[in-house]
Amino acid sequence: MKKTLLLLSLVAAPALAGEGKWTPQQVLELDPAWLRAQGLQVPPKKLWDPQRGTGLLAGAVNVGGCSGAFIAPSGLVITNHHCAFGVIQEHSTPQRDLITDGFLASKREDELPGKGSRVQVPRSFKDVTKDVLAAVPAGADDLARFKAIERKQKELVAECEKRPATRCQVASFDGGLNYTLVDAVELADVRLVYAPPRAVGEYGGEEDNWMWPRHTGDFAILRAYTAPDGASAPYSDKNVPYKAEFFFPLATEGVKPDDFVMVLGYPGVTWRALLAEEMAERQSRLYPRMRDVFGEAIRILEEEGDKDAAGKIAVASQLKSLHNVHKNAGGQLAGLKRGRIVEKQRESEAAVAAWAQKNGAKWAEAMKAREALLAEQAATGKVFEREFLLGSTGRLARGPALAVTVSRLAAERAKPDLERRPEYMEREMPRLKDRLEREQKNLFLPADKKLLQAFVRRAQALGPDERIAAVDKHFGKTFSEKDVAAKIDAMYAGTKVLTLAERMKMAGETVAQLEARKDPLLAFGLDLAKELTALDDVKDRRQGAAMRLRPEWRKAVLAHAGKPVAPDANGTLRVTFAKVQGYAPRDGALYTPQTTLSGLLAKHTGEEPFDVPEKVSQVAEAKRFGTWMDPRLKDVPVNFLANADTTGGNSGSPTVNGKGQLVGVNFDRVWENVANDFGYNPDVARNVNVDVRYILWTLDQVENADALLRELGVRKGKPTVQETR
Amino acid sequence: MKKTLLLLSLVAAPALAGEGKWTPQQVLELDPAWLRAQGLQVPPKKLWDPQRGTGLLAGAVNVGGCSGAFIAPSGLVITNHHCAFGVIQEHSTPQRDLITDGFLASKREDELPGKGSRVQVPRSFKDVTKDVLAAVPAGADDLARFKAIERKQKELVAECEKRPATRCQVASFDGGLNYTLVDAVELADVRLVYAPPRAVGEYGGEEDNWMWPRHTGDFAILRAYTAPDGASAPYSDKNVPYKAEFFFPLATEGVKPDDFVMVLGYPGVTWRALLAEEMAERQSRLYPRMRDVFGEAIRILEEEGDKDAAGKIAVASQLKSLHNVHKNAGGQLAGLKRGRIVEKQRESEAAVAAWAQKNGAKWAEAMKAREALLAEQAATGKVFEREFLLGSTGRLARGPALAVTVSRLAAERAKPDLERRPEYMEREMPRLKDRLEREQKNLFLPADKKLLQAFVRRAQALGPDERIAAVDKHFGKTFSEKDVAAKIDAMYAGTKVLTLAERMKMAGETVAQLEARKDPLLAFGLDLAKELTALDDVKDRRQGAAMRLRPEWRKAVLAHAGKPVAPDANGTLRVTFAKVQGYAPRDGALYTPQTTLSGLLAKHTGEEPFDVPEKVSQVAEAKRFGTWMDPRLKDVPVNFLANADTTGGNSGSPTVNGKGQLVGVNFDRVWENVANDFGYNPDVARNVNVDVRYILWTLDQVENADALLRELGVRKGKPTVQETR
Repeated sequence: MKKTLLLLSLVAAPALAGEGKWTPQQVLELDPAWLRAQGLQVPPKKLWDPQRGTGLLAGAVNVGGCSGAFIAPSGLVITNHHCAFGVIQEHSTPQRDLITDGFLASKREDELPGKGSRVQVPRSFKDVTKDVLAAVPAGADDLARFKAIERKQKELVAECEKRPATRCQVASFDGGLNYTLVDAVELADVRLVYAPPRAVGEYGGEEDNWMWPRHTGDFAILRAYTAPDGASAPYSDKNVPYKAEFFFPLATEGVKPDDFVMVLGYPGVTWRALLAEEMAERQSRLYPRMRDVFGEAIRILEEEGDKDAAGKIAVASQLKSLHNVHKNAGGQLAGLKRGRIVEKQRESEAAVAAWAQKNGAKWAEAMKAREALLAEQAATGKVFEREFLLGSTGRLARGPALAVTVSRLAAERAKPDLERRPEYMEREMPRLKDRLEREQKNLFLPADKKLLQAFVRRAQALGPDERIAAVDKHFGKTFSEKDVAAKIDAMYAGTKVLTLAERMKMAGETVAQLEARKDPLLAFGLDLAKELTALDDVKDRRQGAAMRLRPEWRKAVLAHAGKPVAPDANGTLRVTFAKVQGYAPRDGALYTPQTTLSGLLAKHTGEEPFDVPEKVSQVAEAKRFGTWMDPRLKDVPVNFLANADTTGGNSGSPTVNGKGQLVGVNFDRVWENVANDFGYNPDVARNVNVDVRYILWTLDQVENADALLRELGVRKGKPTVQETR
Repeated sequence: MKKTLLLLSLVAAPALAGEGKWTPQQVLELDPAWLRAQGLQVPPKKLWDPQRGTGLLAGAVNVGGCSGAFIAPSGLVITNHHCAFGVIQEHSTPQRDLITDGFLASKREDELPGKGSRVQVPRSFKDVTKDVLAAVPAGADDLARFKAIERKQKELVAECEKRPATRCQVASFDGGLNYTLVDAVELADVRLVYAPPRAVGEYGGEEDNWMWPRHTGDFAILRAYTAPDGASAPYSDKNVPYKAEFFFPLATEGVKPDDFVMVLGYPGVTWRALLAEEMAERQSRLYPRMRDVFGEAIRILEEEGDKDAAGKIAVASQLKSLHNVHKNAGGQLAGLKRGRIVEKQRESEAAVAAWAQKNGAKWAEAMKAREALLAEQAATGKVFEREFLLGSTGRLARGPALAVTVSRLAAERAKPDLERRPEYMEREMPRLKDRLEREQKNLFLPADKKLLQAFVRRAQALGPDERIAAVDKHFGKTFSEKDVAAKIDAMYAGTKVLTLAERMKMAGETVAQLEARKDPLLAFGLDLAKELTALDDVKDRRQGAAMRLRPEWRKAVLAHAGKPVAPDANGTLRVTFAKVQGYAPRDGALYTPQTTLSGLLAKHTGEEPFDVPEKVSQVAEAKRFGTWMDPRLKDVPVNFLANADTTGGNSGSPTVNGKGQLVGVNFDRVWENVANDFGYNPDVARNVNVDVRYILWTLDQVENADALLRELGVRKGKPTVQETR
């Protein structure tokens, strides 16, 4: 009986079409008839081969925290403009402003290498749950449990990464119910091939971010290179294009409403397995405080940037990231309320509890685990303000953030590699040093000092049980704003942390050497680093408890569901099955699922963020659509909506039709759907995609990128120098 | 041939369904088959009897510049909440706050008389074109032409108003091509029967004003009273309800998408007969300046009102009116651009010109008239800034505005009645004195002084050819802000204009008496009044020229059209035939034509302007819909859209189905449709109505207004004291 139920469950359809970030393995557990009925034409086995641990899904790659996809066998990768922003910014100067003007490599030699640009191509996935759990010694307390699991994960990763150019990850599913070892090839020579002007790639800017209707060309094209023998290698002019086994050819016919699409990629993190009360805590405390603190930081950066043209460029990247989290927090709040997500989770927990009760003693552990999780939650709430502020150090002033990084690096490097915090292990060093170097471009001291001043003011206002000792030590508890400002001025005047060469030197020094420098900002950073390390221990213990408790509870939840349940996002490869679909944002209004070039022109004001570049508007106004017109819309489609189940990390995800062809590039969710991180609300769960026809229209009619179009298989013609090289 | 063409044209359909503010007479010229096909079930002859010069259309009445309608034979009038706001405000005190709480008269004795509340019921319409034009002496210049026509209008009105309680108007059509004498009974005892709480009547406030989706209960119910013999009479407790010959019973079944509706009422003014260049001038100069000047006034009133609770109430009415014109100006700009209205007018003028050319010498006069109008336009542009600012006196600081009113009143009263400016003739005195008295409630001196200061600053900045002499005299040209502020303080400290009893006394004095008062604010007002009078003469001459030229041009335009063309709005009774219809506000979005109680609740934030009163939300949340649920929406409809051709003055217009029953009350146009004053754009021409079922649901489920519902014929039952009285 139980066996039958299990078998049935393995081929069941999900609760809601559109819902679920399925793992590659789960795709094979879903009912193939249901998948076909949705519109999947590729056999599921082609999507994923469990024997090899790879398949077509692996055409979706990780591009530095974003998603991306191979779109040609010659190593071409498509992702979002905002995911390629770093390399665009890196090559931009006032004289050659790629941010403003965009970039097209007219031949391969012109493609621009990116210092930090890396692409990870998945190679295999392996269940290591038994290995990981066996590592926890009997009688371990929660911190020991956490450390043991973390160490085992590190060992597995280290073993896996003995192969050259390999990046591995032990991913935890369902709060620690399962662990998977993900093995990926890392390609370290990735170059910029095409980026649209920022006014296209970010059309609508912060104003349209998270919004619909949308008209944003948020895409860029990169190319991965390898050594001539096909092995991953750092940049070299001897390198050759990577040969992609799996890739998504472009679907020149695009999509229409109700078409089936899949969105593939690397969603970062979601919290659907949280208890209702844990969600409620975020709703009542975390997001409101994020609005507050990051909102203030945005005001500071904008005000200071407005006073200085170079400063404005420097803060652009930080500002963008702050805007993003700030608006996201607002959307979480709105969506949690609108979707009644906490209430629904409460109802669903009650249903599981009632079912568990009926099924007797077997589930008593699950119920106890739930109670214990609630108690942990209540205790954490009491130190929330300090932990939030201290934890935000990295997002606020760059000065202290960099000082903390070199300080923590020195402390961690003193330990054996396997005992370090994961982000300071040897394998992270190239990435970390890239970041320490690249941050130089983001420095704008007048703004940075104001950010630090705001941080200090907030820290000084914390209650007696929530003091940040480093702030009390370096700034006192009661200094006036003016005193604090003077102190900060002195700190910045006396520091070498903000000098690139010195900072890179610091990155190789010991704690004692750093202390001996008597650098005032560094001294503050060293003290902050100690507190952050202690805070990490606190958090590790909490995580150890959650790893002990949550899997027990999740077992009950999954058993109660009786069919496949997609686990929370954790940065691993997922696929979501969806339809092109509009929605009703509110009473009296409907959003249709496609936008057009005419709509793009209608939004044009000539001022940021709605300033269509002349080379685009000329062609669009003349209705030179080429072959990219949608027959129903009588216009070139620009963006489209689907009800895919996406989150952060899905930026740049390929959106693919039932035949496995690229129909778009995912770049956002709608405002009403931000809280889908906590629960899928079918009424408003919509992701936003650049239509492949807008991409092709831009390359063809605006850029005349003939060679690139031929390489993409879209245009026929004689091979050019570029192609034959 | 020509005759046939003319006959055909008389029964033709309009160019676009929805377009046209038809005069009662034109309704009989439209093709009856077309009207039936649209959905009109009442025979056109029942709408209007040309012999009597009245008909069902006359059930729509003028309510102090707004529209309204009889909805029962017992004198009940429905109009907008914002049109009844004056009487609601008049009876509001901190102890009995009808603005906040709303009002329901539980019996007739409780109905609240309004000082300025008047209802005009049309009695007859008569063509007086020949009389008016015959009054212009041969060889008259433009000022003389204007004066002669104005005088003749006054004489006709004076003759007409010899009958008691009669208000007459000589309305000009097509820029002076035709004149009609409109004769109306004025009912002077009008009482408040029902007003919803402001949070219902203004739900969404300025934020939703001109917007869709909308959830505003913008309605109120009044009752007109007469002397026991049926004659119009001022308030008396002997008065009895007016017996309405024409009225619109309530259609309890409401409307659904695509239903036919008529909107009846008194649209104020539109400018579709302007030349393209005249429109362009408003687009480039007038509306941007309105945004600027009134935007500043709004900021001042809001800032000052926020500092003082009583001040906030005092400025509410002025603020509301400023917000309205300010947002309107923005909408005109957006709509002119979006609808390409100036360009279309240019194209249409070119078509008329080409046609006129082909038809030879006959239209040479029309073409010359057009050239002359353009020359007038060019000359006016040069003195625009001074004329705009001086002309805004009445909208800005109340102090100078009241001083100007008493000053001009004194100057005009010295002349024979027929030689006065129309707004200061004897027949206007009751209205004018009401206003002088009622304004006392709107005074909040700190804000008023700031408004005056802003006015002075702008006047001081005008160019040498555009000086305002009164400002130069009283404030100098170069005083600092501080000096101006001190001067204003002294003016307000030394004036009696702002004391009610003194001001009412001034309203009876001569210019010499006013001058002898040596009142500093009054002295400023007397000087401003002189300049305003001189400006009026300038404008009169311009109008005289336009009266000479525009009819010539319009003859060509109308002949070219070859079918009925609805004339521009001029405050006279009109009807527009429409359908219930949504629209696409922009690429990627559609607006559906109905909103619901659920949508109203979804907008609730608990803060103004989205603060649903508890008595409403309780019933709405419990889904106590009574019999007012729409079967398709499964909810009570709140507002709906139609493509009726409305403008300002249509506020409170009855929206009536094909059977002549009330289905809603018009209260707004959508933002995208504001510029329809210049041209009808079928894509976005939508008016916004309160659904009759929301009105009935409110009276029934929220207010339990049983007696009122029985009087409206909606509820059966034993007559109550109220009804038998």
